[in-house]
Amino acid sequence: MPENEGVRTDGRTPGQLRPVHIERGWSKHAEGSVLISFGDTKVFCTASVTEGVPRWRKGSGEGWVTAEYSMLPRSTNTRGDREAVRGKIGGRTHEISRLIGRSLRAVIDFKALGENTVVLDCDVLQADGGTRTAAITGAYVALADAISWAQSKKLVKHGRKPLTGTVSAVSVGIVGGVPLLDLCYEEDVTAETDMNVVCTGDGRFVEVQGTAEGEPFAREELNSLLDLAVTGCAELDAAQRAALATAL
Amino acid sequence: MPENEGVRTDGRTPGQLRPVHIERGWSKHAEGSVLISFGDTKVFCTASVTEGVPRWRKGSGEGWVTAEYSMLPRSTNTRGDREAVRGKIGGRTHEISRLIGRSLRAVIDFKALGENTVVLDCDVLQADGGTRTAAITGAYVALADAISWAQSKKLVKHGRKPLTGTVSAVSVGIVGGVPLLDLCYEEDVTAETDMNVVCTGDGRFVEVQGTAEGEPFAREELNSLLDLAVTGCAELDAAQRAALATAL
Amino acid sequence: MPENEGVRTDGRTPGQLRPVHIERGWSKHAEGSVLISFGDTKVFCTASVTEGVPRWRKGSGEGWVTAEYSMLPRSTNTRGDREAVRGKIGGRTHEISRLIGRSLRAVIDFKALGENTVVLDCDVLQADGGTRTAAITGAYVALADAISWAQSKKLVKHGRKPLTGTVSAVSVGIVGGVPLLDLCYEEDVTAETDMNVVCTGDGRFVEVQGTAEGEPFAREELNSLLDLAVTGCAELDAAQRAALATAL
Amino acid sequence: MPENEGVRTDGRTPGQLRPVHIERGWSKHAEGSVLISFGDTKVFCTASVTEGVPRWRKGSGEGWVTAEYSMLPRSTNTRGDREAVRGKIGGRTHEISRLIGRSLRAVIDFKALGENTVVLDCDVLQADGGTRTAAITGAYVALADAISWAQSKKLVKHGRKPLTGTVSAVSVGIVGGVPLLDLCYEEDVTAETDMNVVCTGDGRFVEVQGTAEGEPFAREELNSLLDLAVTGCAELDAAQRAALATAL
Amino acid sequence: MPENEGVRTDGRTPGQLRPVHIERGWSKHAEGSVLISFGDTKVFCTASVTEGVPRWRKGSGEGWVTAEYSMLPRSTNTRGDREAVRGKIGGRTHEISRLIGRSLRAVIDFKALGENTVVLDCDVLQADGGTRTAAITGAYVALADAISWAQSKKLVKHGRKPLTGTVSAVSVGIVGGVPLLDLCYEEDVTAETDMNVVCTGDGRFVEVQGTAEGEPFAREELNSLLDLAVTGCAELDAAQRAALATAL
Amino acid sequence: MPENEGVRTDGRTPGQLRPVHIERGWSKHAEGSVLISFGDTKVFCTASVTEGVPRWRKGSGEGWVTAEYSMLPRSTNTRGDREAVRGKIGGRTHEISRLIGRSLRAVIDFKALGENTVVLDCDVLQADGGTRTAAITGAYVALADAISWAQSKKLVKHGRKPLTGTVSAVSVGIVGGVPLLDLCYEEDVTAETDMNVVCTGDGRFVEVQGTAEGEPFAREELNSLLDLAVTGCAELDAAQRAALATAL
Repeated sequence: MPENEGVRTDGRTPGQLRPVHIERGWSKHAEGSVLISFGDTKVFCTASVTEGVPRWRKGSGEGWVTAEYSMLPRSTNTRGDREAVRGKIGGRTHEISRLIGRSLRAVIDFKALGENTVVLDCDVLQADGGTRTAAITGAYVALADAISWAQSKKLVKHGRKPLTGTVSAVSVGIVGGVPLLDLCYEEDVTAETDMNVVCTGDGRFVEVQGTAEGEPFAREELNSLLDLAVTGCAELDAAQRAALATAL
Repeated sequence: MPENEGVRTDGRTPGQLRPVHIERGWSKHAEGSVLISFGDTKVFCTASVTEGVPRWRKGSGEGWVTAEYSMLPRSTNTRGDREAVRGKIGGRTHEISRLIGRSLRAVIDFKALGENTVVLDCDVLQADGGTRTAAITGAYVALADAISWAQSKKLVKHGRKPLTGTVSAVSVGIVGGVPLLDLCYEEDVTAETDMNVVCTGDGRFVEVQGTAEGEPFAREELNSLLDLAVTGCAELDAAQRAALATAL
Repeated sequence: MPENEGVRTDGRTPGQLRPVHIERGWSKHAEGSVLISFGDTKVFCTASVTEGVPRWRKGSGEGWVTAEYSMLPRSTNTRGDREAVRGKIGGRTHEISRLIGRSLRAVIDFKALGENTVVLDCDVLQADGGTRTAAITGAYVALADAISWAQSKKLVKHGRKPLTGTVSAVSVGIVGGVPLLDLCYEEDVTAETDMNVVCTGDGRFVEVQGTAEGEPFAREELNSLLDLAVTGCAELDAAQRAALATAL
Repeated sequence: MPENEGVRTDGRTPGQLRPVHIERGWSKHAEGSVLISFGDTKVFCTASVTEGVPRWRKGSGEGWVTAEYSMLPRSTNTRGDREAVRGKIGGRTHEISRLIGRSLRAVIDFKALGENTVVLDCDVLQADGGTRTAAITGAYVALADAISWAQSKKLVKHGRKPLTGTVSAVSVGIVGGVPLLDLCYEEDVTAETDMNVVCTGDGRFVEVQGTAEGEPFAREELNSLLDLAVTGCAELDAAQRAALATAL
Repeated sequence: MPENEGVRTDGRTPGQLRPVHIERGWSKHAEGSVLISFGDTKVFCTASVTEGVPRWRKGSGEGWVTAEYSMLPRSTNTRGDREAVRGKIGGRTHEISRLIGRSLRAVIDFKALGENTVVLDCDVLQADGGTRTAAITGAYVALADAISWAQSKKLVKHGRKPLTGTVSAVSVGIVGGVPLLDLCYEEDVTAETDMNVVCTGDGRFVEVQGTAEGEPFAREELNSLLDLAVTGCAELDAAQRAALATAL
Repeated sequence: MPENEGVRTDGRTPGQLRPVHIERGWSKHAEGSVLISFGDTKVFCTASVTEGVPRWRKGSGEGWVTAEYSMLPRSTNTRGDREAVRGKIGGRTHEISRLIGRSLRAVIDFKALGENTVVLDCDVLQADGGTRTAAITGAYVALADAISWAQSKKLVKHGRKPLTGTVSAVSVGIVGGVPLLDLCYEEDVTAETDMNVVCTGDGRFVEVQGTAEGEPFAREELNSLLDLAVTGCAELDAAQRAALATAL
């Protein structure tokens, strides 16, 4: 692709994110809730706070944060079976739920949280690539609101700051030899290499998961993907801060 | 409640529906999709069309319509476990999925549909009473759009009309001795009698499910509940028609 | 059907029940047990009393009553798979178990029962239509015997009456345009409308579940079905009383 | 136990069976059906014939016979959970189902049966020890009736005899040092050694399953138990023949 | 087979065991561990000791011993599905796990063991007939080592001897009319009668499980199989003692 | 750790692998089989070849390679429940099985393999950190043997080379601020950052999965971990080649 190298099907440049929208307060029940969209990917994230922690953590004085991810059956182009109907959760769902939970725990001070549990539910309403990265980015905002709620309700002790930083995530990949930021579904299925990167607001890494879908990838390719991801996460971090700056 | 008998917590009169909103085209993937709200109850309904029918119906020349209902874990005031995580579907979910499927099949001519299947997915994003009736009412609109799509794609033979009528549903109940239309959650939990009624547009019944939650109910009470439900369904029928009258 | 309108395949008139037999004391182990038959439908009902209640009810001072319904694999004309072998309970089984439980709870004073639990097991040995209504009618008798047992064992406090009334159930339906009482299987599969009605002994309603299997049904049809059901339940109530009048 | 050695709680002598009753034709649907009782143990056995065989046997020209055993939840003194509700079949149930199937296959000529399948369902209505041996003994009679039915319907070719013999089963055990035939529950739980023996009508063995519940058992003990079992099975064989000698 | 009657495919005489190898200490984690082989059958047995007992045994002062058996998917000639992937344990696995547990409990004094639990895991790495008998024979050795460990750690009170004897197991069967000891897979599949016998070191029986795979078997055949099994178990007992005689 | 920075609990230098052993031909049944150890971590890998492919791939002319990973219950310091007994596979197991499958598919030419399936089973016999990387490294050798077998049996067409390269894997992590190669369990649980890297023999990447267990990690840390991993994989590649160079 000599001339218009990097011009993407939706007109973006290689290093450009899709439009990001973050709507807080989408649920009247949840302590934190966000509808986030990365282009046509829409994920509904709720944060549920309960007093107490799982049995294995009782008496530790420390809290817990966990996550569950799921796709609505028709969030995709072809309807998928419900996991509840199949009676078991698939490997991909497990993997992504675990990734989201780990990513958010990276910015939590469990001592400061005290023996409270926050469950993040990330349900994909519409999928167009990048559902796990949108889920992490949105779940962070829901989590921040839930923690503010817990502070206001005195579930968290005065002066304690359970959130130690911010976290966001983005996908990157190599398509037709070109490193691209924030792949849409069409790009994702043709990518030679696909990577999901989770960063804190200070540009350090929480997770780096790169997979060669076709050819193995070289160290330089990995480097250029990481460069893209770091800039993408910085933009998402700004979007999160902007969303949280307004009153609920 | 002598003086303001029938004045409800949200200010409605006994025979008044909550505000109803029907947004079509909420999914870019599904052949029909609707976000319906009855007050604070919000249900996302998608209709997925596939060629072919389940094995037991093959070669019959007839189509099939079925439904699956589910609540997101934090659609309720307290977070509920995911059925996929528990590994089985609860009795209530089964019951409501079956009710939605039967209700919509009541207005389908399977011969006219031909060997095509429509699956209605009704996922409750936020619950405040009446989720099953909102699901039926919204799913009808998604089904109507899906059938138009199937006609435009020639999956349904020219001139055939798979939809034989319209269908909507509403809850009624007796609270503090007063028959009320369209119960919100707060009313639902205190109702002595609770009834869900599914009507066709011509005012006939598809389903009548009445349950005494406390005292058994008398024939006259049943009659006044049915009267309320019939007027409520007529209003919902009008709302469905209005929604479908606009271009997608 | 002009001339012999209402003459049914088994010779009954439209408003006639099938022969009802109630045998108490069919199990040497259960606190209450009944083999009930509505014609060729035979259901074995046991009532099991245990001290204590489920966790969510502990300390409330109130008891609990619940039910489980199941069909033996060859209770039907064609053998069905065992739900234990399939590893999950089907929607219909769930729905009927819940219906039986709700119906019996309608005549229980939980405070008077105290923190005791009664489980009703209704296993269909032979099915010929109306299994859920026979189950409710038989389970009531087993429940009454179980409560007498609990009183005799002082599990229920002296002077307390946990049973607040009687309950029975019958199916009604419209077949060939004619409202019929207590449908056998052959009638059930051809019914345009099918309704199960649960009444207390004083003729009030505990559950009304009507379903249009083909055409939607009109208000007058609903009314004539309810009339039939009320007379049927009154006869069943008499049969229950007669059965309970004899010594065990 | 010096003086009245061998006088049992229910007055039987060590080598005496409990009263055996075999009622044929207990189901109007099944091709063969039997309600068998060994004292207070009651098992309902149905034999279901279907044309065709499981996939792995197709085209072999040979039939198949299999069995499923289950206990109703309140067949025992204390109510047990339903395996369908727990979502899995326990080891004991599996083991007994397999034993019943093997025992009946021992008297089947699969070539003569042709590509037909017989499923034996053995549901314990009331348990008082020896449920598996009563199940085998009753299932044989149901199987014999089902095969007669299949012959009458020409599912089995003219002149073919799928049944090659008869089969019955009995439990034996050592209680208080004394070998006993046909243990009731009370004896079973105190037995030092417990054995289930399945014999053909000519006195040969199909299955011998002996278990030391307490002390290991010596060769002479094993021998005296086998002696008892062989005489018990001969009596059961006679009871089966008597039951089958009458017209259905 | 007139002349070389009893000469087996692998050259053994009818009463000859395959080579038996018992390697102790195969795991650095387990309190007892053994890799046992009977010819090409290899089973890895670990014994895990934990303080405490299952809930139903708490406060009894008695310990518990249980076992789980499993085959690796490619331990057999054709790969089998993993039971974890199918989501349920098959009947054969259940049956064998229960047999191993019962066999080992036969030589345990639960009072002497105190409230400790030993779980025996028997995983078949390579199968060539006799996996359950190799598992029992190996598990005994792992159990003995685990109990020595528990004694050394003072989990078992000073002077107490939880092991009351030794136990081993072997298969026997009739192939081509000839009783054979320790069947390999090729012999097992063609055996007319198949028996698994579990003996204590003093030659008494813990379990005798004989099954006619084809023709029913006569009393004399049973006797000659038991004779073979008793001599086989005596040899296995010697092998176990030899293995345990060396330092770990 | 000023002076002996990098001296590890087992005496290794930071960039040193544990001793690696690869034994081929460990199963007489499987088409390829390997017992691999990385220090005390032992994984048994079998490769099973079957003709044909899963349904979704039929007629494509392309083969398939997949993997299943599991830990024996007592492969770890404390016994874990069997996933077959729990009735479902955990998230970690799913995740690792998928990783192994993807890693091996990276060096397969599916066209050259033709419509054949290879299943890699990786069962951990003893765990001491790095089980997934040992599994990938061993599975590659089993896969290579299985493909040689398929070529020798003409399942793969003459001249076709299904293997396009070699693949191995190693873990790296930061412990006490020092980047280490091939973490044992003790190091793994204290690592601040943990990364698994899968490389081809030419030093390119198939998978990079880095996780911050405590603090987020910086770009330079990531770089030094990747450096270590590349050298480790090169050594493992040499060990694989050496193992495959000998006759089976």
